[in-house]
Amino acid sequence: MRNFKFTLQYEGGRYQGWQRQESSENTIQGKLEALLSKMCGQPVKVQGSGRTDAGVHALGQVANAHLETDKTPGEILEYMNAYLPEDIGVIKVEEADERFHSRLNAKGKTYRYRVINSPLPHVLERRYTWSIAEPLDVEAMKRAAELLCGTHDFAAFTSAKKSRKSTVRTLEELRIEPHGDKIDFYFSGDGFLFHMVRILMGTLIETGLGQRRPEEMTEILASKKRELAGALAPAQGLTLMEVRY
Amino acid sequence: MRNFKFTLQYEGGRYQGWQRQESSENTIQGKLEALLSKMCGQPVKVQGSGRTDAGVHALGQVANAHLETDKTPGEILEYMNAYLPEDIGVIKVEEADERFHSRLNAKGKTYRYRVINSPLPHVLERRYTWSIAEPLDVEAMKRAAELLCGTHDFAAFTSAKKSRKSTVRTLEELRIEPHGDKIDFYFSGDGFLFHMVRILMGTLIETGLGQRRPEEMTEILASKKRELAGALAPAQGLTLMEVRY
Repeated sequence: MRNFKFTLQYEGGRYQGWQRQESSENTIQGKLEALLSKMCGQPVKVQGSGRTDAGVHALGQVANAHLETDKTPGEILEYMNAYLPEDIGVIKVEEADERFHSRLNAKGKTYRYRVINSPLPHVLERRYTWSIAEPLDVEAMKRAAELLCGTHDFAAFTSAKKSRKSTVRTLEELRIEPHGDKIDFYFSGDGFLFHMVRILMGTLIETGLGQRRPEEMTEILASKKRELAGALAPAQGLTLMEVRY
Repeated sequence: MRNFKFTLQYEGGRYQGWQRQESSENTIQGKLEALLSKMCGQPVKVQGSGRTDAGVHALGQVANAHLETDKTPGEILEYMNAYLPEDIGVIKVEEADERFHSRLNAKGKTYRYRVINSPLPHVLERRYTWSIAEPLDVEAMKRAAELLCGTHDFAAFTSAKKSRKSTVRTLEELRIEPHGDKIDFYFSGDGFLFHMVRILMGTLIETGLGQRRPEEMTEILASKKRELAGALAPAQGLTLMEVRY
């Protein structure tokens, strides 16, 4: 069995997220496993670097799978792109060390969250953005972002049920880039909790709208209470850009 | 009756083009007329600056309509965006002179045609681009573009049946902008014949693939023969950017 590393793009809108579910064929992982199983003539498990929620997109998701095949990486890429639906694409296939594990070996990830700050529609970007009509205070959001960066217990910023697993993560960078009426938020870190980016985004937007002070970020982090943080931002604005190893 | 000028965006994928058809409700003009008729409580005709083909998008289409209404332009914009499907959006409503006619008064238009020049999928851009796997020679396309600019009889570059109407147009600019593996083609002119931009694009791409010499453009123009020009490029790569008055 050879171990292959896949770099993937997908548009999340039609799927119930990354993770295979018993009740539904309609997941990215499910689609990839069905196709690779067909290619190899035996059941294949695909391991992703992490789950993405229903509706979240990817330009650089990484996965790996152990395959019984004679095909070259280039042939596998071509085969997959020929048969995958047009909202899932493979942009790289590499042969990896047999011990390579896309989740356990991941050192960091970058997500982008894209906001359109305008009362006017942006028809061609609507699937990949969150539209906010009221003007956002970018400087206030930048001050909040600075307080969120670093190594913290992000328990307040996850929807995951309490467990013994650590909720400490390092948010290495939270970069806010306005381009006209579009604002891109880049989140880079060593790992992200369930819903973490979307709750951070919801909280930042409430700060940008003047509903919160940037200084509150410190209190929210210290509280570890989900109810003190902001609302969950919509999935469609979020894109997994890169997984680093 | 007051005359209103509308600036519109739409994603063409779900529609059979701009122009109302008897057999189908599924046109941009049809959607706008149905909504404005409902708003005004009487039949409304919407005049577009020109038709766009099925599948072609717009970021700056212009239309006008004479309406019996007390609403302000801002109220009309809000009403329309509240009820239009999400793939049609109104970005500006202005009250215009009663003689303003969006087609007859148009002085020029700009279209963008977007190509992805890569064998790899670009999942999030697939709806708005034409993907070409083989490498394109941008310099050859630029030389061809220079020969196409200016005032010419573009009879070879239209699918319209022969008629007495003039097929002379001025292509003021044909700008080719590569950005990584994306190439944007901007066409600005005083008017465009049926399918003209898409046939120009098909011909440019054949030049970029080395199937034609740039110098052929002069011969194709002089021939006035459709069969000498290139194939019709797919609608989905084309976006009407601006109409000038």
